[in-house]
This record gives sequence, C-alpha cells and structure tokens, in this order.
Amino acid sequence: MNLILLSPEDIENDHLARVRDPRRLAHLTEVHRARAGDVMTLGIANGRLGRGALLTLDEREAVFDVSGLDQAPPPPLPVHLVLALPRPRMLARTLEHVTALGVKELTLLNTRRVEKSYWQSPELGDDKIRRHLVLGLEQARDTRLPTVTLAKGFRPFVEDRLPALLAGRQGLLAHPGMAEACPRGVETPTLLVVGPEGGFIPWEVERLLATGCRGIHLGPRILRVETAVTALLSRLF
Amino acid sequence: MNLILLSPEDIENDHLARVRDPRRLAHLTEVHRARAGDVMTLGIANGRLGRGALLTLDEREAVFDVSGLDQAPPPPLPVHLVLALPRPRMLARTLEHVTALGVKELTLLNTRRVEKSYWQSPELGDDKIRRHLVLGLEQARDTRLPTVTLAKGFRPFVEDRLPALLAGRQGLLAHPGMAEACPRGVETPTLLVVGPEGGFIPWEVERLLATGCRGIHLGPRILRVETAVTALLSRLF
Repeated sequence: MNLILLSPEDIENDHLARVRDPRRLAHLTEVHRARAGDVMTLGIANGRLGRGALLTLDEREAVFDVSGLDQAPPPPLPVHLVLALPRPRMLARTLEHVTALGVKELTLLNTRRVEKSYWQSPELGDDKIRRHLVLGLEQARDTRLPTVTLAKGFRPFVEDRLPALLAGRQGLLAHPGMAEACPRGVETPTLLVVGPEGGFIPWEVERLLATGCRGIHLGPRILRVETAVTALLSRLF
Repeated sequence: MNLILLSPEDIENDHLARVRDPRRLAHLTEVHRARAGDVMTLGIANGRLGRGALLTLDEREAVFDVSGLDQAPPPPLPVHLVLALPRPRMLARTLEHVTALGVKELTLLNTRRVEKSYWQSPELGDDKIRRHLVLGLEQARDTRLPTVTLAKGFRPFVEDRLPALLAGRQGLLAHPGMAEACPRGVETPTLLVVGPEGGFIPWEVERLLATGCRGIHLGPRILRVETAVTALLSRLF
C-alpha cells in the first residue's frame, strides 16, 4: 500500500477518517509498522489525496487527519479496455496491473476461446473485483476506481454496444498478424480490444474490424495476456 | 507452449529429435492433445525454428521431424537489463516476462532494499532459472536463451563491471522522481537498471548516475516491479 485508500464510509468529517476493516488495520500494523504520529499518504476513493497523520491506532481502528488532502489523483489513461475474460487467477492480477497503469473503463468480454467456467468464478463477484481494483489504486497512489462491465455475449456486445463506444474513440484490435505495428505515444481517446489466450477466432476478428476497429500487432512474439496488456498500454500511452 | 523447444541433447541427427522429459511429454499429451502426424512449431535452443511433424508419441518419448526448421528466431531487444533481485515468486514470473519480451542479457543485482534471504532462494538455482527462461521462450516462440548473471554486491558491480557494460551502451536508470520521461522507440544498445520494491536508496541512485546512467521515470504512478519492467521494455523498444 503506497496509499491508504479511504472509502466514503471511513470519512467522519473534513478532518477525521476512521479505518476499521481488518485488512487495512493488519497492513498498517504489520507492514507499515505504523504508530500514532506517523505521516502517511492518504486518498479518498474518487477524491483527493495527500499526506496526513495517523492520530491513533489500536486493534479496533486507525484514526487519520484528512484535513490536508489537497492533490488531484494522477491522470487516467484515455482508454476503454475491452479484454476477453482471462482465467480467474490471471484476471485477479490483470485487474491490479491495469488499475495501477491508470485504466478507468474496463469491459470483460466473452469470446469463443474463453472457457465457459470462467464466468462462474467467484473472482467475478463485485467484492472480489473491487478488492483487486483497490489493490491497484493503493499500489499506484491513485483514488479513482475503474468501472468494470461484464459482456457475456460477443455478438450482442459488438452489435449493440461497440458502435456507441467507438463514437469519439479510435478502436484498436490487438491481434497477432495484423498489418499495423502498435502505435506509440497516442493521446486520442482509444478503445483497445485484447483477445484471450489462444486469440480471437477469425470470425471475431472480422466482426471487430467490420465494426470499426483497426488491427494492430506487437511483433512476432506471442505474449501472455497479462504481459501483452501491460505492453500495449505502455507503448500506446 | 507455443513452440516445442528442443535442447541439443534432444537432437539425434539433421532429421530427428527425441523428447523424453516428463514436463514436455505431459504438455504434449494433456494440453496439445498431440497425435502422431500433427505438425507443430519446433525450435532448437539457440538455433532455428519452424514447423515439423510429430512422428511418434508414447509415454516414453516423442519423436519429431526437424528437417524443415528454416526460420531465424525473432530479433532480441537491444538491452542488458540490470534488475534488483525480486522476491522469489516475483523473480519466477519476471524471468518469464522478460524472456518472452526478448531480453537476452540479465543481471540480478543486490541493493540495500533487497532482502538478504532472497539470495538463498532455491529459485536462484541454475535449473530453476533455466526452467523459467525456457517457459518464456516457449511462450514467445523464441529459441535464444538469455544469460543471467548474479551480482551479489552493489558496490563491486558499479565500480568493477558497470563501466565496461556502459561501453557502447546508453545507461538508463528507471527511478521515480527522475527528471526525464522514459524515451520511446529507442534503437541504441541500452543498459536498463531497475530497482527493488521500495526503490534504490539515494546513495545507490547517486552512484549509478555518477557512473554514467541517465535517470528516467514512468510518471507519477508507482508500479510493481514486474509491471514496471514490462512497461519500461515496451515503451523503450
């Protein structure tokens, strides 16, 4: 935790916040070895961040002075990431990576090569997803929670939702063998589509291109999804 | 495995290779569900790659036709990566990531914030390291094994080895708060230095800069080492 992320329920007034959940209390005690008087980096979910003192800490709660939180969170990436649902363990890590990198809009998409069982995973529960997003924010010292949308049908997503998402955004489909190399240093709002392990099937590629995405590639190397997503975001933005 | 990596011991002659280790045999049977006659992507360690038929497969061995391996492996990144030794679990993943991305020279460095116990980890055994490098090559369809060097003293590395490594290479030190943003699309041979979780201490930063490295940053977000390394390599090259 490079930042203690406070949720709205933690905030008592303009000056005080109380943290009571076991995860953050344990982290404060065991990892930070925090003591009353320590000044730490604090942030309010979807709000400002800055330095603030830990006023008291016991096994029940930690009380922080939040009167000095005067910084805006770091700028988000101008991207809506559409990612074929990864297998559960990789989903957890990928949610943390992309949140730390500054993604604020994420759609998890069904495709032919996504195993059906992945949609039953407890990792897709709201609480589980939120937990990984919070870990990513705490890592990167950010406060703005991404929104995560589940798109359980490929065709309905492409036909009903993709055209509206592409209004005002360039659409990029990352897929091996496409003609164009991944561009660098993009500032235009972008929708980035990344397939599953094993890739999109040709029909899916065709539908995404026909709906207005441009195909891009990252070179001849085949990367795991979590590596590819980080590589694409870092090269693009 | 997007490529079956054959070691020199597997090669019987210009036409035949025999794979006998349980890991690859199990992968062929259980993941690829391979059968005699299947044509697969094969590569010879530090040599050529291409398509070749699986001639026979039983519980003892797989025999491949290697007469058609006529492609060069993908180009390496022009980088020597100097990485503060990560904790064992992250080391394993990072070795796979950086190998898949095309790093061929890697030095694992001791720094003040590397826990001493990490140097005792079984993950640093030659066989363990090689296993993760091979997984990275198999993922990326590459055949050239990286060389991994352990530098167990920071000062001897910086004083005795770094000057020679910087002959003919630009040295870049990735560290939060440095003045210059990470450059993009570099083709010059580069030595890239990345610190541990928690960062280099000021004295280490000063020594690296004084020895000829330029400081670069990736923005205000603090990334985990494995994310930062992938992000740096993808943005630089």
